[in-house]
Amino acid sequence: MKNTFGSSVSVTLFGESHGPEIGAVIDGLAPGLPVDEAFVSAQLALRRPAGKISTARREADAFRIISGVFEGKTTGTPFTVLIPNADTRSADYARSAFRPGHADYTAHVKYHGFEDYRGGGHFSGRITAALVAAGAVVIPALKRKGILIGTHVARCAGIDDAAFGNLAVDLPRLNVLPFAVLDEAQGRKMQAAIEAAAAEGDSVGGILESAVTGLPSGVGEPWFDTLEGLLAHALFSVPAVKGVEFGSGFALADLRGSEANDPLRNGPEGIRTLTNHNGGINGGISNGMPLLFRCVVKPTPSIAKDQLSVNGETGEEETLRIRGRHDPAIVHRARVVVDSVTALTLCDLLAQRYGTDWLGEDDA
Amino acid sequence: MKNTFGSSVSVTLFGESHGPEIGAVIDGLAPGLPVDEAFVSAQLALRRPAGKISTARREADAFRIISGVFEGKTTGTPFTVLIPNADTRSADYARSAFRPGHADYTAHVKYHGFEDYRGGGHFSGRITAALVAAGAVVIPALKRKGILIGTHVARCAGIDDAAFGNLAVDLPRLNVLPFAVLDEAQGRKMQAAIEAAAAEGDSVGGILESAVTGLPSGVGEPWFDTLEGLLAHALFSVPAVKGVEFGSGFALADLRGSEANDPLRNGPEGIRTLTNHNGGINGGISNGMPLLFRCVVKPTPSIAKDQLSVNGETGEEETLRIRGRHDPAIVHRARVVVDSVTALTLCDLLAQRYGTDWLGEDDA
Amino acid sequence: MKNTFGSSVSVTLFGESHGPEIGAVIDGLAPGLPVDEAFVSAQLALRRPAGKISTARREADAFRIISGVFEGKTTGTPFTVLIPNADTRSADYARSAFRPGHADYTAHVKYHGFEDYRGGGHFSGRITAALVAAGAVVIPALKRKGILIGTHVARCAGIDDAAFGNLAVDLPRLNVLPFAVLDEAQGRKMQAAIEAAAAEGDSVGGILESAVTGLPSGVGEPWFDTLEGLLAHALFSVPAVKGVEFGSGFALADLRGSEANDPLRNGPEGIRTLTNHNGGINGGISNGMPLLFRCVVKPTPSIAKDQLSVNGETGEEETLRIRGRHDPAIVHRARVVVDSVTALTLCDLLAQRYGTDWLGEDDA
Amino acid sequence: MKNTFGSSVSVTLFGESHGPEIGAVIDGLAPGLPVDEAFVSAQLALRRPAGKISTARREADAFRIISGVFEGKTTGTPFTVLIPNADTRSADYARSAFRPGHADYTAHVKYHGFEDYRGGGHFSGRITAALVAAGAVVIPALKRKGILIGTHVARCAGIDDAAFGNLAVDLPRLNVLPFAVLDEAQGRKMQAAIEAAAAEGDSVGGILESAVTGLPSGVGEPWFDTLEGLLAHALFSVPAVKGVEFGSGFALADLRGSEANDPLRNGPEGIRTLTNHNGGINGGISNGMPLLFRCVVKPTPSIAKDQLSVNGETGEEETLRIRGRHDPAIVHRARVVVDSVTALTLCDLLAQRYGTDWLGEDDA
Repeated sequence: MKNTFGSSVSVTLFGESHGPEIGAVIDGLAPGLPVDEAFVSAQLALRRPAGKISTARREADAFRIISGVFEGKTTGTPFTVLIPNADTRSADYARSAFRPGHADYTAHVKYHGFEDYRGGGHFSGRITAALVAAGAVVIPALKRKGILIGTHVARCAGIDDAAFGNLAVDLPRLNVLPFAVLDEAQGRKMQAAIEAAAAEGDSVGGILESAVTGLPSGVGEPWFDTLEGLLAHALFSVPAVKGVEFGSGFALADLRGSEANDPLRNGPEGIRTLTNHNGGINGGISNGMPLLFRCVVKPTPSIAKDQLSVNGETGEEETLRIRGRHDPAIVHRARVVVDSVTALTLCDLLAQRYGTDWLGEDDA
Repeated sequence: MKNTFGSSVSVTLFGESHGPEIGAVIDGLAPGLPVDEAFVSAQLALRRPAGKISTARREADAFRIISGVFEGKTTGTPFTVLIPNADTRSADYARSAFRPGHADYTAHVKYHGFEDYRGGGHFSGRITAALVAAGAVVIPALKRKGILIGTHVARCAGIDDAAFGNLAVDLPRLNVLPFAVLDEAQGRKMQAAIEAAAAEGDSVGGILESAVTGLPSGVGEPWFDTLEGLLAHALFSVPAVKGVEFGSGFALADLRGSEANDPLRNGPEGIRTLTNHNGGINGGISNGMPLLFRCVVKPTPSIAKDQLSVNGETGEEETLRIRGRHDPAIVHRARVVVDSVTALTLCDLLAQRYGTDWLGEDDA
Repeated sequence: MKNTFGSSVSVTLFGESHGPEIGAVIDGLAPGLPVDEAFVSAQLALRRPAGKISTARREADAFRIISGVFEGKTTGTPFTVLIPNADTRSADYARSAFRPGHADYTAHVKYHGFEDYRGGGHFSGRITAALVAAGAVVIPALKRKGILIGTHVARCAGIDDAAFGNLAVDLPRLNVLPFAVLDEAQGRKMQAAIEAAAAEGDSVGGILESAVTGLPSGVGEPWFDTLEGLLAHALFSVPAVKGVEFGSGFALADLRGSEANDPLRNGPEGIRTLTNHNGGINGGISNGMPLLFRCVVKPTPSIAKDQLSVNGETGEEETLRIRGRHDPAIVHRARVVVDSVTALTLCDLLAQRYGTDWLGEDDA
Repeated sequence: MKNTFGSSVSVTLFGESHGPEIGAVIDGLAPGLPVDEAFVSAQLALRRPAGKISTARREADAFRIISGVFEGKTTGTPFTVLIPNADTRSADYARSAFRPGHADYTAHVKYHGFEDYRGGGHFSGRITAALVAAGAVVIPALKRKGILIGTHVARCAGIDDAAFGNLAVDLPRLNVLPFAVLDEAQGRKMQAAIEAAAAEGDSVGGILESAVTGLPSGVGEPWFDTLEGLLAHALFSVPAVKGVEFGSGFALADLRGSEANDPLRNGPEGIRTLTNHNGGINGGISNGMPLLFRCVVKPTPSIAKDQLSVNGETGEEETLRIRGRHDPAIVHRARVVVDSVTALTLCDLLAQRYGTDWLGEDDA
């Protein structure tokens, strides 16, 4: 399905960095979900660049919802949101040598030179604004069902954030922070490191750690459409994500079964595990514990340093110096994108399990 | 689509650990692929348990191909392979307390107690035999197109294998090894560590590292159906895989853009990169470099130690001691499963890009 | 998805006329559906040829359910049924000139000569036995939910059956008749006409008319996945079906809006329409009235007369005289196939709307 | 997938009759297709109401392509077209009793009262403008590959058009006619009959007959994704279509096999059939002959006569007199919608068979 993801609830993305508008269609939304435009704006603001640690490109993100909402609530028919691209400076992006670490070369091969190369075209991180707007419609609906999603910058430029503590406290707090860390002092160090890299014309990467609480047990499938598989499928669409791990993830390689198995207990909330090395998932299916996963975000490929590359027109090797406006780090901005694709993926799985209307309200 | 994966080429898995037969259907295969039953057997042998480091369950894996092959070649219509379950001892698996780290509890919630719990039922690693048989039909076809896939046990029980060297040498060599490592001495240490864990009634995990050479550039999609996303979706179906990373993966968090960007060169093979931190993928699309990815395999959850758990019938907490036959490690057996799902996923993407018949031969 | 149909509940078909076994996998079935093997046998018997009006090929249809059922009930994991092909006489089916009206030529083009041509291979009506077995698992489950499906031979060889009367009486009666007509005298005339055609080495066609009662309103989608579109998609898989119409169908061309619009009334059963020209569907969505649709079944293409054709090996034109065993009509046998694909399609739509478990029972 | 159709090439529809804009996204288009905006306008003009035989609603259909086109050609990434709704008069459409023959009631049930009821909302025929715009991008691309599509009003208000003659002449001629008939005199009679019905506040239906020439043989699948099944699935999305038949369709019920089988010949164009009762399809797969199919279009449900209905707010039965602007017939306007969905469906099947790039041009 290419640029569409999901079965019962699906999202389709379209647009280019320098086109007039980008957007998303969500199909299969339950009818009757209140659409809070202020929350959509707030989520878009979290994704928007800000301060010295981001690109100078400034977009108002004056989104327009053009279908699927009537009298402030979703209708159940396709929801479409458009976001205009206002601050485009195409002259900055004349067709140059392929930018290393970007999709310029692969797009050129795949699309035979017909691709809109300006600012990365359809591959631009700009498109994630539409994902965030789409996610902002379902995040409050999941919250009404008791399902909370949150993400922090667990590591950036070699600096670690604190570990998750009480998720009921951590997640709401993280969700409104512009630079989402649990330990503010560590966050300041990360931002200083980003600025330092920027000053050198370079960029840094990081790790995002996410948690979801309140997800019912029994969601996901044994083969192929495992909860891990579907989430990872979606998360690898977040630009620059190159790895996804659940629970203790790669650290499980060095544990023994007697350490990694999460013992089961039957308490007041029902059956739960004492530890959560499996990240809330066994056999591809949610077990009622918090979902825990981590995504690595590579350093932004756009840097202001000389790089070796090849000119797509001539095939000649040349030294490339990227101009234009760039982010010295995107891990902190990718955070809200991760939350959004997580929310959309969970809505799909919940709709598959409980039906079309489960997420919605009572009759109008 | 649940237990089916793929769009142009899809695979459907069925069966239970203690049912009469397990199997797989591949739909969308190119017509005219030679089916080498000896190779199917050889691949199944690589997955089968052997020696002290595996379960004592022994299956002959006497597969039968019941559709989609005529006069030794695929017909283009659905290919079905069945593998009988011969050595089942259901008495070993009476409904007990939920086994920690297994899907017993999540299956119970999802299927409301109707699940076939014997030996893990549909969740059993046994089902991967059908995946391996399915993969064994397409691996030789990819090879004829110059696409080679191979995997080694990069780490097990805290012991590292050597790094990939010359893939043209490494991959064919790995593909016939029962315990696939590049450094045999390290492999012997790993096996000793597995035996030591087994002697304690415990189990160990590890990391599989895979490479694919010869994949054309231009395969994959910018959003959602990225090459990373689709491979990860499939790889998380390999039981016990809890993390997937591409290229330098989680290590990218600590690199700078100037290090992580792979410089482009135009050489005799066409445009290639000098390094491969991106694992052969940019913007979700193959770039002509080797695909590189790693999967973490958690320690086998079946261990011969007392564990805390809950009885599904009574809801009582109890101490569980799992009996029956178990693997102290599965990372080495999972290797051929990883190769198989990789092969099936790539066939799908190649068929989407180049059409139904690309993988096949000329007319009969 | 080719040989797979359905989203939440999907069915995959495999096998060839002269292979060892044919079969079907249903994925996404609710857990806890009782599987009545006697009913599966009874449905298969309705599809099986019998008497002078059918092919002399006799299959015991000794099906085996090899996955997805435990202690007599569906588990919720993939359900697989296999049916052996016992009475195959491949010598009857040496590769001959392409049989007119069959798929021989199109299969040859599509599969480049690699197709299993024996008895039509994967295109054979024989494969519908697997569809019937699959349908026989869900028809009783729908019935428990108050949803009844039934079909009669509305026309055959130019002879009309009576019209539907009281569906609550008609449907159960039809469902056990070997030659399903409402007016037995007309049915005898039809059978005599079939025998007369057979005596001339020829074949006849007909029209099947189906009704579904008890389907909840609100099932189906406005665009693309309309109830008509999905049912038609599935029904055109019934071999020889070349047209599908809903409600008054093609007769609507000659009605005025004031005649074709079904007036709405609010009675004891809720809102219903006075007439049913729309066949229970408005805007692609069920309206609570009985679904009504008709399928035309072309005359069996296998006839015992000389026909002009082309030899696939030589490209020469030649006169073909088909030998082997054939049906002078299949409309009466196709009836149970129509019911089966209807049932499977409705299960999918109901699972999409109400969730995975709706069709199932309470907990085990 | 609900409001999305297609696998390799998919189309997603969104928008409501009285929303700001409607639109469509096509994903999977080959890169390098020239986009002829004048042709898009011309196709939209064929769909637009005109003269006394159509609604008085007048839309300029000033479409905007906002993604997927660069320098006049498709890029291969999602193509999005928006069409503003300019001439909306929502006051005409206050929530009234459910209009008989419309989707008002079924939408109300499905969406629990949250539907945008104004002018039929997402169910409005207005949405087909987006389908026509989408189709207008691929129709010229198919033509460059030698594939021509055309449709005539074969019957309207009881008046028959002439039969297809030489398709190479008929199809191009039909494609530019505002009222597409082969026999102009019959067309004038039809229009007079439509005007007469309109004068009585009533509406009429009809039959559209379509032909496709130049489609390669070997396109379509044996089960489920048959060429008939996929086309019918799409065609039933054209509002008011209630029946689809291929080749001789329902008339096959009364033919014998010896009449209905199309004899094969091997001529200068390759293997063809002498007759075309099967409408260019055998076993679900194209056979190289023209595709032939017919759709019945019911009389427009909006009529200016008193009708019995039920008020959705109160549940009371009442007499409804629809006001606003309506079409006394839509069969002539639906023609270009049928061509568009046919073109989109064929593009998908061709891309599945021959790969992503087949429809496109050489490199830029």
